[in-house]
Amino acid sequence: MTDSAAPQQELDVVCIGNAIVDVLAQTDDSVLDAHGMVKGTMALIDEDQAKILYKAMPQGIETSGGSAANTAAGLASLGARCAFIGKVRDDQLGDIFVHDIRAVGAEFITPAATAGPPTARCLVMITPDAQRTMNTFLGASVNLDPDDIDGDLVQRAQVIYLEGYLWDRDEAKAAFLKAAALAAAAGRLVSLSLSDPFCVERHRDSFRTFVTDHVDVLFANEDEITSLYQVENFDDALQHVREDCRIAALTRSEKGAVVVAGDEVHVVDANPVEAVIDTTGAGDQFAAGFLRGLTRGRDFATCARLGAMTAAEVIGHVGPRPLVSLSELAAQNGLA
Amino acid sequence: MTDSAAPQQELDVVCIGNAIVDVLAQTDDSVLDAHGMVKGTMALIDEDQAKILYKAMPQGIETSGGSAANTAAGLASLGARCAFIGKVRDDQLGDIFVHDIRAVGAEFITPAATAGPPTARCLVMITPDAQRTMNTFLGASVNLDPDDIDGDLVQRAQVIYLEGYLWDRDEAKAAFLKAAALAAAAGRLVSLSLSDPFCVERHRDSFRTFVTDHVDVLFANEDEITSLYQVENFDDALQHVREDCRIAALTRSEKGAVVVAGDEVHVVDANPVEAVIDTTGAGDQFAAGFLRGLTRGRDFATCARLGAMTAAEVIGHVGPRPLVSLSELAAQNGLA
Repeated sequence: MTDSAAPQQELDVVCIGNAIVDVLAQTDDSVLDAHGMVKGTMALIDEDQAKILYKAMPQGIETSGGSAANTAAGLASLGARCAFIGKVRDDQLGDIFVHDIRAVGAEFITPAATAGPPTARCLVMITPDAQRTMNTFLGASVNLDPDDIDGDLVQRAQVIYLEGYLWDRDEAKAAFLKAAALAAAAGRLVSLSLSDPFCVERHRDSFRTFVTDHVDVLFANEDEITSLYQVENFDDALQHVREDCRIAALTRSEKGAVVVAGDEVHVVDANPVEAVIDTTGAGDQFAAGFLRGLTRGRDFATCARLGAMTAAEVIGHVGPRPLVSLSELAAQNGLA
Repeated sequence: MTDSAAPQQELDVVCIGNAIVDVLAQTDDSVLDAHGMVKGTMALIDEDQAKILYKAMPQGIETSGGSAANTAAGLASLGARCAFIGKVRDDQLGDIFVHDIRAVGAEFITPAATAGPPTARCLVMITPDAQRTMNTFLGASVNLDPDDIDGDLVQRAQVIYLEGYLWDRDEAKAAFLKAAALAAAAGRLVSLSLSDPFCVERHRDSFRTFVTDHVDVLFANEDEITSLYQVENFDDALQHVREDCRIAALTRSEKGAVVVAGDEVHVVDANPVEAVIDTTGAGDQFAAGFLRGLTRGRDFATCARLGAMTAAEVIGHVGPRPLVSLSELAAQNGLA
């Protein structure tokens, strides 16, 4: 035996995104007003702003977050084989992030930065209407660069999943493009989440080029997709996006989701939820459910139902990652 | 005006204890068995053990804890004026602890250590029966020493509240004795929680001496008080403790609480709870409710009912500190 290395496991999805620890606190609307936040969106802040804002926040809880990392956690809970690529610093918050992403069962090998800014954190205000308003200090996440894109990982996966938030930094964007090129060369699918309407505002032109040139599966909510195409209503955006990419999975909160893939169109209802507690992670988890279905070869309607089920679980509690076994939940819902 | 300092606010309670960030994860009993843990108790571990055990834990959430600090949070939520004394390191977990204790409204001025071990953490396994099993790496907490006991703070408070866990380190024990002496000299009440039956095992003789010589108000659960007096049943322990200190508030989980103060005895039922989710902090919050009543001059039965109400709130959710305004809850329950 000259080659003693064990053959490496095939992967369903590799998720690439910011490695962030969330600080969640329940606040009233006045905190948002006092600091000029726009409800339901994510704003980028620097380290000094993070300190000031943290001081103004009530007592919170800390929990691993990051959009694509949350998706990886959802995928793992659904039984998918997945990996995550993202950058932490070698500090206490970084230790928490790395522990948690591995504990959910995702492969994670990106080396931690040993210098530079601390691990990213996202200050999340949860208002009584269950909306989450986020302020992110990107910290060490900005140091994700093309060298961190492990070609082997990318080529072992059926799909790569990229969060739009990475577009905010040039090095990360370069990493993102490298991953997409590697995946395409290996005949893999490239999926992207638009992440946030303001993120779309900041990067509209390059997002549109990227979607047209590289994206097989696009995830967006109503605000994001109408912003991308600068149109007034959802249906207009729908007509645009079906020209631009093979599969678009568009979420509309309580109105459910629409999947469009060429001539195929599905309109799937949202799952009923007893009480909406915290919408953090809803889009991330919809993507997890959808991709789980896709990588198992399920039809698009079933993929969307899996997404709706997974999103409904996460908005029923505080925190952006599932609290129950989603594979058991899928079995109970006849979606296994 | 030669003295321009504003007069300092009178305080109801100063709580003194370990400054700890909790890492909470839901596990099954097998994790406890595999690591030789005794369900429902707290074990002390070193930094290396903390690393090994953390690796074996599922994804968790981080939240400020510490027994007496949880009591301070409960007192603040009940509208009491309180302060906390405890030691963190100047690191990310320390920043979280300090932010949270101040955010709940407690005064906190103990300087962070600038060298030595990191901020303490407690790895908490929550099993499906809602029991919490704790493994604490004391970290920077061990560096609390008599110099950290601010005489002014202690003398401004009606009551000082000490957690038995501090007894595990000599420097902290010395701090504890200094605080008790200062309080007594100022005519203030000294209260103590026995914290944990194993903590009582470790320090039985010195606890008994301290209770007899210094404690006005003793908090203990059934396991702790029977261990203190090495008796077989609750009633025997009750007869002992009424000889030893002015007021004993003894908790018995679903059987409620017994308060004994000389010839006065009250037996108060536990509050009904829809679902017991996590018993972390139940004893800490009972003490908060009881002390809130005591510092407002309420009768002992009302103090115990406030304790029962406050404990019931905290066991209904994950995490050791209240999630609602306890002063509003008290008003709704006719206990304001």
